Amino acid sequence: VTGELRLVERLVQRFGSAPAGETWAGDDTAVLRAPAGTLLFAIDPVVEGVHFLPGRDTAADVGWRAMARNLSDLAAMGGAPHSAVASVLVPDPCEWDLDELADGLAEAAESFGCPVVGGDVSTGPVLVVTVAVTGSVVGEAVLRSGAQPGDTLFVTGALGGLPRRPRPRLAEGQAARAAGATAMIDTSDGLPLDLRRVARASGVGVALDEVPVVPGGSFAVGDDYELVFAAPDPVAVLAAFDAASLSAPIRIGRCTDSPGSYTLGDGPLPEGGWEHTWH
Amino acid sequence: VTGELRLVERLVQRFGSAPAGETWAGDDTAVLRAPAGTLLFAIDPVVEGVHFLPGRDTAADVGWRAMARNLSDLAAMGGAPHSAVASVLVPDPCEWDLDELADGLAEAAESFGCPVVGGDVSTGPVLVVTVAVTGSVVGEAVLRSGAQPGDTLFVTGALGGLPRRPRPRLAEGQAARAAGATAMIDTSDGLPLDLRRVARASGVGVALDEVPVVPGGSFAVGDDYELVFAAPDPVAVLAAFDAASLSAPIRIGRCTDSPGSYTLGDGPLPEGGWEHTWH
Repeated sequence: VTGELRLVERLVQRFGSAPAGETWAGDDTAVLRAPAGTLLFAIDPVVEGVHFLPGRDTAADVGWRAMARNLSDLAAMGGAPHSAVASVLVPDPCEWDLDELADGLAEAAESFGCPVVGGDVSTGPVLVVTVAVTGSVVGEAVLRSGAQPGDTLFVTGALGGLPRRPRPRLAEGQAARAAGATAMIDTSDGLPLDLRRVARASGVGVALDEVPVVPGGSFAVGDDYELVFAAPDPVAVLAAFDAASLSAPIRIGRCTDSPGSYTLGDGPLPEGGWEHTWH
Repeated sequence: VTGELRLVERLVQRFGSAPAGETWAGDDTAVLRAPAGTLLFAIDPVVEGVHFLPGRDTAADVGWRAMARNLSDLAAMGGAPHSAVASVLVPDPCEWDLDELADGLAEAAESFGCPVVGGDVSTGPVLVVTVAVTGSVVGEAVLRSGAQPGDTLFVTGALGGLPRRPRPRLAEGQAARAAGATAMIDTSDGLPLDLRRVARASGVGVALDEVPVVPGGSFAVGDDYELVFAAPDPVAVLAAFDAASLSAPIRIGRCTDSPGSYTLGDGPLPEGGWEHTWH
């Protein structure tokens, strides 16, 4: 319990300064100015033994990734972060450094402008960090369902990397939206599965030419925090990314009018990926 | 994994019908019209072995309580529910009936007008249901910090009940806010601790006359989902509850100008309660 209270104190200390008229940690709920435009809302956990392991991952990396996973979901809508709440389950005894966990959460939150405005610390059998985020988008969010035959498919970077501190592609998602992206998803469950989700929701097929992967990586692993999106005007996409000083997205293929057909070069697009997520 | 997918399907089925212009489950995040006024945001988990037990609790009750805990936090601000997301960790093998879990979540969500608009199902060592909610309040939320010496203290019902399906006091919280409540909290961690939180945040003392408890109950146990609030005008409070056709709240005492002093009748207010929550 002492460790839990220290974690609370450290998080409150790092996010202690709500702007005038707002209340963050310290009450039954956070009290916030509502964002302008459309509200985005998502939740994602990271679980010891499933998403991270003692010995392999540091507590700071766990905190960072708990935040980054959620921010990547906002990025995939073309949205901007608004605020986060965190629920932490702490095992007793706890071998994790909870100060470092709080610091990792806070560093990701600060890096991407998504303050942790409240939360809860309880006991659990293993370390679990569940973050929920709100975000906003002015205009229309980019769903999975708008891709059209003929749209060009892009990824925001080479797949198969498993970065210790992944950077959610928030600026890239917003640039893609501004450039008229018709459908977008992050590759958290692996490109083959995530791209099929887009294609099924949109009623299109997918013909890929080539998919960039990091040396030694695989594009079917997921957890690489890139975005894949469809857009009708590739020139507008490249211009929007250039105007935002972002690395150019990589063309991987196009959407076709053959729903259910998924090809890579001359062959089928492999299966694979994590099928357990709901949203 | 089959059980997880069925849980996803069942939740999507129960909350499948987003209004026009909104997208609920099925994309990277939910897309919602932002509520008018001020945004409230909170997260709370229920954990097997901590908040519920196999044999004692049904899966449906677990789902209900996961939602009710969060709604009680909104009630304590005088707020109205807007939307919820749920993260469910499912052990493998799983002895819990996940259909019933989804039904319990859905029944509480429907009973109190807080649709589950998205979520995630992952593997975990025990069943964990973490719900995050947004809500709204038009005007000022009722914080913990506004109580003044002389304010009357009320509870919304007898404490110490451990109902299988607690009903968050949303209407009562809104009536208290409308009647000028200066500070409010739910008694989830037990009245002695929760009332001290209000008193510390407000810089007042507390002099209680008598605290209503259910037969055989204790007011220090918590988990009773009542509200305790301070208000300067008890007549206005009783009128507001009567106008809303709510049971009259019960006067338990008053706030004093002696910070740090907590009395019940002629003696001290006992200690006790759950100290691990952050918000």
